[in-house]
Amino acid sequence: GEPVRCTLFPGDGIGPEIAEATKQIFKVAGASVVWDEQAIGTQPDPRTNSMITRENLDSMLTNRVGLKGPMTTPIGKGFRSLNLTLRKELGLYANVRPCFSIPGYKTRYDDVNLVTIRENTEGEYSGLEHEVVKGVVESLKVITRVASTRVAEYAFKYAVDNQRRKVTAVHKANIMKMADGLFLRCCREVREKFPDIEYNEVIVDNACMQLVKNPAQFDVLVMPNLYGDIISDLCAGLIGGLGLTPSGNIGAGGLALMEAVHGTAPDIAGHNKANPTALLLSSVMMLRHLGQNEVAENIQNAVLTTIAEGKFRTGDLGGSATTSEFAQAIIDKL
Amino acid sequence: GEPVRCTLFPGDGIGPEIAEATKQIFKVAGASVVWDEQAIGTQPDPRTNSMITRENLDSMLTNRVGLKGPMTTPIGKGFRSLNLTLRKELGLYANVRPCFSIPGYKTRYDDVNLVTIRENTEGEYSGLEHEVVKGVVESLKVITRVASTRVAEYAFKYAVDNQRRKVTAVHKANIMKMADGLFLRCCREVREKFPDIEYNEVIVDNACMQLVKNPAQFDVLVMPNLYGDIISDLCAGLIGGLGLTPSGNIGAGGLALMEAVHGTAPDIAGHNKANPTALLLSSVMMLRHLGQNEVAENIQNAVLTTIAEGKFRTGDLGGSATTSEFAQAIIDKL
Ligand SMILES: CC(C)[C@H](C(=O)O)[C@@H](O)C(=O)O
Ligand SMILES: CC(C)[C@H](C(=O)O)[C@@H](O)C(=O)O
Repeated sequence: GEPVRCTLFPGDGIGPEIAEATKQIFKVAGASVVWDEQAIGTQPDPRTNSMITRENLDSMLTNRVGLKGPMTTPIGKGFRSLNLTLRKELGLYANVRPCFSIPGYKTRYDDVNLVTIRENTEGEYSGLEHEVVKGVVESLKVITRVASTRVAEYAFKYAVDNQRRKVTAVHKANIMKMADGLFLRCCREVREKFPDIEYNEVIVDNACMQLVKNPAQFDVLVMPNLYGDIISDLCAGLIGGLGLTPSGNIGAGGLALMEAVHGTAPDIAGHNKANPTALLLSSVMMLRHLGQNEVAENIQNAVLTTIAEGKFRTGDLGGSATTSEFAQAIIDKL
Repeated sequence: GEPVRCTLFPGDGIGPEIAEATKQIFKVAGASVVWDEQAIGTQPDPRTNSMITRENLDSMLTNRVGLKGPMTTPIGKGFRSLNLTLRKELGLYANVRPCFSIPGYKTRYDDVNLVTIRENTEGEYSGLEHEVVKGVVESLKVITRVASTRVAEYAFKYAVDNQRRKVTAVHKANIMKMADGLFLRCCREVREKFPDIEYNEVIVDNACMQLVKNPAQFDVLVMPNLYGDIISDLCAGLIGGLGLTPSGNIGAGGLALMEAVHGTAPDIAGHNKANPTALLLSSVMMLRHLGQNEVAENIQNAVLTTIAEGKFRTGDLGGSATTSEFAQAIIDKL
């Protein structure tokens, strides 16, 4: 059939280099995708009052599916995080981060295979803060039935669709009895509709302790925004860091923006040294989302085999391969 | 000199057994302490409107120093956590958890040696929540200049007093710009008074990733309440769990309640199987607080040597020793 038009935000720093590697690999792998490439975060747009332009948003809203490299938020007042702006403006309510031990890349853990699903629109990220009196700041955490149910439903559906067996809700309802209590209530209601998926609840502090002691006990985890932010990074740490973990932001009606969540690495930008793995694995998530499962599988296998063989690893993984050499090694396997 | 009167809350579940072990070991070690032993959490007191009685609070306020075993909060409305009630009623503003790899007890990490210092009175623990409209809950995080400065000062003083070299402030000021921004500002102000202590700041998600990748990079960490709750448990996980980590709650004017933060383990309670290590190491913190450094050192060495030798480990550490056998092994070393 016709190739699918997808938005590509290369981003800045190492973004363009890892995006280039991804484009080459997509071509060789036979992905049925044409890119609508969009510069992003380079100039303020008065229409959006942000560095995300109207064209950026429209591209995603038209194509429905996209891939994004890293992006720096300029420092200074009046700028909120560009990554957050995208998630919010596009209503990308679920942040999905599969995290698995990479064969052949040794860390202290070799048995991680879990997925964190983070509520992506509210919670501690409301941005509602004020100074009540001098020296006293209040910050609002907002938890709603709508957003909690939506992300819980996504988590259970994800479990079914991806042959996962268990969903764990992470919370602090012993302290935030009403807010996290509501989140849990929504998870429990949704859970009724998925009798074949195991369900349990773990308090966030204990979840972190259990994750570092024995991550293999976890499968799919679902949680409010901030816990998801923290736990997804913790899990990335278990398997080697953000350079190796893909992520996806999912919205209503199939809207999906996959994203490498690592930084822009300005120190090595432009030097052909960056590791494109996080973006490549994110692009694999994108292909699966498009139903191009075979190409997705092929790319994932080629990436993992290249890392496992160890000959063409980039500097962050202890090797000395350039971005292009790593990409070429993957292409040679396809 | 006269022995110091200290409050002892054995708590429930395994509390009385591990408290008994501690009392015996204190006797043999020559700790200059007499215990004011207090039943706690057993009956509601109308004067305090809680299961913490007026006598419990008065004992601490008179003696100024105490030791506490685990305590269950009865489930049901109207009861807030008893541990929290104690911290709040006594104004115990800093929660201090040293966390170090236990020689001879193998986990995935052998190089942990850090201390988390958690703001213990406010933040996400305000208990201020309401349902704005049906299905929308707001929960208030409160950050004040007073509490942030107080805990930052404690952290830097702790670093100086304990020959630590660095303090790391953990925050999410990129999102909670005002609340965590205020916390950071206070840390930066306090830091000016301690030019010999290194200082840096790490975002909470990144802190968790760094902790699981390379905990040896951290020394003293200071942070708002919830991050402290999460990160102290994460750190405990690195070295084997809450059964091995001491903690202290510090208030104004030398008020100090040291505490084993693990659970009451009702499944093994009364069976002489509990591991008293967390309470013993907490009692060592108490002795140091009292200036009884030599006895403190002796007890800590005896505990660690007993674990390292491995002959008398309790069940949680893979051994088959009873609580009394473990305690006796420690006593034999003293
Ligand atoms: C950059 C930052 C605002 C963002 C977040 O807190 O969500 C990041 O940590 C992430 O997880 O994508
Ligand atoms: C029991 C619970 C209320 C408590 C907390 O959240 O502070 C515990 O996790 C702790 O860290 O002491």
